[in-house]
Amino acid sequence: MNKDYRFTLPMKVRDYECDLQGIVNNANYQHYTEHTRHEFLLNEGMSFAELHQQGIDAVVARISMSFKTPLRSRDEFLSCLNVCKEGARYVFHQDIFRLPDHQLALRAIVDIVCLVNGKLVVGVPELDQLLTDDE
Amino acid sequence: MNKDYRFTLPMKVRDYECDLQGIVNNANYQHYTEHTRHEFLLNEGMSFAELHQQGIDAVVARISMSFKTPLRSRDEFLSCLNVCKEGARYVFHQDIFRLPDHQLALRAIVDIVCLVNGKLVVGVPELDQLLTDDE
Amino acid sequence: MNKDYRFTLPMKVRDYECDLQGIVNNANYQHYTEHTRHEFLLNEGMSFAELHQQGIDAVVARISMSFKTPLRSRDEFLSCLNVCKEGARYVFHQDIFRLPDHQLALRAIVDIVCLVNGKLVVGVPELDQLLTDDE
Amino acid sequence: MNKDYRFTLPMKVRDYECDLQGIVNNANYQHYTEHTRHEFLLNEGMSFAELHQQGIDAVVARISMSFKTPLRSRDEFLSCLNVCKEGARYVFHQDIFRLPDHQLALRAIVDIVCLVNGKLVVGVPELDQLLTDDE
Repeated sequence: MNKDYRFTLPMKVRDYECDLQGIVNNANYQHYTEHTRHEFLLNEGMSFAELHQQGIDAVVARISMSFKTPLRSRDEFLSCLNVCKEGARYVFHQDIFRLPDHQLALRAIVDIVCLVNGKLVVGVPELDQLLTDDE
Repeated sequence: MNKDYRFTLPMKVRDYECDLQGIVNNANYQHYTEHTRHEFLLNEGMSFAELHQQGIDAVVARISMSFKTPLRSRDEFLSCLNVCKEGARYVFHQDIFRLPDHQLALRAIVDIVCLVNGKLVVGVPELDQLLTDDE
Repeated sequence: MNKDYRFTLPMKVRDYECDLQGIVNNANYQHYTEHTRHEFLLNEGMSFAELHQQGIDAVVARISMSFKTPLRSRDEFLSCLNVCKEGARYVFHQDIFRLPDHQLALRAIVDIVCLVNGKLVVGVPELDQLLTDDE
Repeated sequence: MNKDYRFTLPMKVRDYECDLQGIVNNANYQHYTEHTRHEFLLNEGMSFAELHQQGIDAVVARISMSFKTPLRSRDEFLSCLNVCKEGARYVFHQDIFRLPDHQLALRAIVDIVCLVNGKLVVGVPELDQLLTDDE
């Protein structure tokens, strides 16, 4: 883990997330990365659910995931993220490292765009402040 | 299947629903029974999502499930229901039969209550009509 | 919470567990209770996945759940259990309390039976020891 | 839909797949694409679960998804795929179209690799035959 991350969440595999191959089903990595982004927002004083109630929806426009080492029953892991902005997109770089060996399990890039009352906007102040805090 | 059912939905196991034991994870039977109730409502001209938008929420108050024969990858099955009313509760009797042998996989009883704008009510006309159609 | 529990796991709602009603979808309570049982086993030195690899499958025969107060986005909660044995069944009494007000969210009774190489047995020593530790 | 697809599966949104934004949660698109691949295999006489029991595991190495139009409660859709091979990777091009307007909902590229008894191989005859059938 030779990178610095903006936010890191310790998590653990739950058995119901494993499929008949005995490894975490791929769709659950999207759950892990989504949960990590929402916990990051909460940590910055923002709630995904409250934003939705205010008419602001952060939605995933594009996601790219490379699966490196499969996680298994009982594995603990660190879910890490960085965020930057490219045009109207908030780009989250999200990596998952298995513990205790810090083996890379997932490398993901997630592009988020904002809808205000259903219309695409170039950004919202609530999320833009995440970036100015960044340096 | 020596009972008559009010509504029957043919379904099929999806592999991601199976867990590391190679059988459908128990929580998915709740998904199956919920989906069956919602398809039943749609078939009667009602939408769970639209009811929610009108401030009417049908919520599960109690569920009891007996797991008989585990469903596995590739199994097809029939998800069947009957409904009656007991006091303020809409009581769904829901059975799942594996195909083609009609082996009973699940026997469930699901009690639904209605909230209108968050307050418990003894029933809503939209759902009560389901019962009068019943005979 | 005027009862003593054998095992208590602090958990937190993840947003993807909430459905279009804005509350935790009922099926996720089964995930919560399963995860709690498996963490309890781990805490006692047993692994559900390893038991499966040894040919021992603990499977849910019956589950009964009463939904009291719906959990929502950001809620933290305590998932608590007790276990006893009735005939061939390991009976888990599982309650979930919302934090910080300890409001009861779920009351569940889960009957587990054991299969060894696919055959029902009256119990396995690995699980029976959970009970003798109990007093 | 001005492309020809190798395989097309008609599907329908289930309400429990929608999250608190009222749209299908992104992780479910991975479920949709996985289920489509497995149904495609079955249609070609191959079972994902049986392959696993024979020691052959097809695992996702990389997935890239562009989310175009969100699917909602009650939406029906077509889940379509094509497959080709690039080196050791089986590359699935998977598109989802909302019905009845054929609006593109998802565009995905999924790279699958094969493990035989846990070791990466350049391909397996069972899957390679999918390609030779292709023209």
